[in-house]
Amino acid sequence: MKGYDKFNLLPPQDLADKLERMRTLMAAQGVDTLFVADNNNKYYLTGRIFSGYILIGLDSILWFVRRPSVFREDRMILIRKVENIVEHIDTTKLGRIAFELNQMSYADITRFAKALNVSEFSNADGILNIARAIKTPYELSLIERSGECLSRVYSRIPSMYRPGMTDIDLQIEIERISRMEGCLGILRVNGSEMELNMGCVLVGDNADNPSPYDFAMGGAGFHPSLPVGADGTVIRQGHSVMVDTNGDFTGYMTDMTRTFTCGKITDDAVKAHHLSIDICNRLAVMGQPGVKASDLYSEALNMAINAGLGDRFMGHRSQAGFVGHGVGIAINEGPVISPRSRDILQRQNVIALEPKFVIEGVGAVGVENTYIVEDGGMRCTTFAPEHLIDLLD
Amino acid sequence: MKGYDKFNLLPPQDLADKLERMRTLMAAQGVDTLFVADNNNKYYLTGRIFSGYILIGLDSILWFVRRPSVFREDRMILIRKVENIVEHIDTTKLGRIAFELNQMSYADITRFAKALNVSEFSNADGILNIARAIKTPYELSLIERSGECLSRVYSRIPSMYRPGMTDIDLQIEIERISRMEGCLGILRVNGSEMELNMGCVLVGDNADNPSPYDFAMGGAGFHPSLPVGADGTVIRQGHSVMVDTNGDFTGYMTDMTRTFTCGKITDDAVKAHHLSIDICNRLAVMGQPGVKASDLYSEALNMAINAGLGDRFMGHRSQAGFVGHGVGIAINEGPVISPRSRDILQRQNVIALEPKFVIEGVGAVGVENTYIVEDGGMRCTTFAPEHLIDLLD
Repeated sequence: MKGYDKFNLLPPQDLADKLERMRTLMAAQGVDTLFVADNNNKYYLTGRIFSGYILIGLDSILWFVRRPSVFREDRMILIRKVENIVEHIDTTKLGRIAFELNQMSYADITRFAKALNVSEFSNADGILNIARAIKTPYELSLIERSGECLSRVYSRIPSMYRPGMTDIDLQIEIERISRMEGCLGILRVNGSEMELNMGCVLVGDNADNPSPYDFAMGGAGFHPSLPVGADGTVIRQGHSVMVDTNGDFTGYMTDMTRTFTCGKITDDAVKAHHLSIDICNRLAVMGQPGVKASDLYSEALNMAINAGLGDRFMGHRSQAGFVGHGVGIAINEGPVISPRSRDILQRQNVIALEPKFVIEGVGAVGVENTYIVEDGGMRCTTFAPEHLIDLLD
Repeated sequence: MKGYDKFNLLPPQDLADKLERMRTLMAAQGVDTLFVADNNNKYYLTGRIFSGYILIGLDSILWFVRRPSVFREDRMILIRKVENIVEHIDTTKLGRIAFELNQMSYADITRFAKALNVSEFSNADGILNIARAIKTPYELSLIERSGECLSRVYSRIPSMYRPGMTDIDLQIEIERISRMEGCLGILRVNGSEMELNMGCVLVGDNADNPSPYDFAMGGAGFHPSLPVGADGTVIRQGHSVMVDTNGDFTGYMTDMTRTFTCGKITDDAVKAHHLSIDICNRLAVMGQPGVKASDLYSEALNMAINAGLGDRFMGHRSQAGFVGHGVGIAINEGPVISPRSRDILQRQNVIALEPKFVIEGVGAVGVENTYIVEDGGMRCTTFAPEHLIDLLD
């Protein structure tokens, strides 16, 4: 994408759609001025990353840019530090202010509030998260493009396998192919509960090692400073090989998992894998606008329990408490498909479903797909074949 | 490193060294109890990452662990949420409390303080940053090991070059080799001012494209959601190829840059490259305990100005305001080698020096090395050859 337009990256209609949604939410929550500092939210509102802040008023939007100082945009004002903002606005007209209290540090919020001379403010994160959970047509087009790229990566995985490989060896080759297809590499997350280098390959019983992070599956990792994913396990006959790798090729990601095998795996593992596909298909039909996210979770859990696989569902030694999550700019957006979620599915939500199982002696099995919520149900954007593919074939 | 000891990762003497340093700083700043939540700081104090918090009192250390819940450690207490902490400690005996106000979100600090029923607290980041800037012998051994691994990566770069490659093509091959040598991949930073996928390859005039991030060099990147580094430039005759790639192989990193060429580059570019080596050597001799960081910067800048290269120093269209920085668990630790730095060099600081120049029509030139501050000066830990290596040879 050399030579992308550095100055005018969002289609005007897309920005208009997002601002309209945000201003409706701001009005409902009594917010007159909302400041954005988080990179993911800046990308949402400008289509680029810069160092600085965005002010969203009920009829204005301003970019306060610290770096880079060389680009030009109508609504842009160069600043050196946050204290310069007051030189460019009338602070008496800001009204009720909201900051991203979950994203910005305590020190940054304190400094920002002092610069604006405000002592009361509310949390902007709810507004931004609710807005971002419903994608615009432009965002959906970027997500669909990422899904196409990621599907190409998965189609090349069987050709990367060599006998004697470890999980890490395979992961490195997947990372390379992903980057060649245009994967951006870094994993954008909201908050600090997740760290991962691009993706995760889980082989054999390592799939049952719990991690500190809020992912569906764990893995011990190969170093205690990043205890997640591949741990150096040699891929052997009878192992499953679950691949869940970074799907961000456009600034918007899709999330997909596929399971490969090394030779024949046990019948109960094959059964669990097919159940995962069945759960995805069932939830995709159920998942229409207006449906409770918690009902989707219950349906998935019940299908697992009815198949006698409740204690293998979403892990075994440690079980993740969700079966799906919104994706977009970040890997962990709304809605959350969990037992206590209060989210209601809405048109143009984008949701990754990942009903996975851990079978002792074999490893993790199951699939993950990313879906767009539409009136007739959820439409899949991740197209690689779902069946178990034997790496030895 | 499969089968690393998951339960007892720091040598006891290392933890004792760190706690002694921190408690001296706590006493000096009137802090009785310090809470740690940031992953980099947790790794510093435990040798691993977990979800939860560490309490450091003047004679106690406790781990409050949310996830993973399966490991065991003497000083560990399992919790579900931050509010559970008060069930395990006497909050009336905490005294004066410090939190990481630059690392933790406003919402998390507010919730934490409410759980502990405290309304006043101070900032723990100064204490942690000062402690972390002076490395223990164990930390130095991990840094030296990372330097050896990273030097091996650089030695393999010339063999990766193929005619017609873009900067991104070369970067992908460097990423693969780095991962094969054990590079952890993610770039650990303090704060939110830096985002990068593993490393940076700058070719030709892309070196002069400024980025939003606080790196020495920029680059436009190939996507507006990550505008830094390689931008798809084809490597052509007369270009310099600057490689600055992730040196974290042990949870502790080194930072190294080397410059390659595609055929012959201009005399002024060669001259600037040699000046970079000279600056590093000069500063390595100067950089003894007790020397002002700002004096090192002045020396580097003066050498650049005296050579007629002041306006190419640390960039051209946009110039970075430093020539070096501490490294350790994160890429941006203390001391900072900048004009207004108040840091004084101390024994066992670990500092990356990166005097770099941008020459129009050629690209970026110069080297970066990571040094340990010792009584006789700074000792280098990054050993790849410093001279320009022609990829066409």
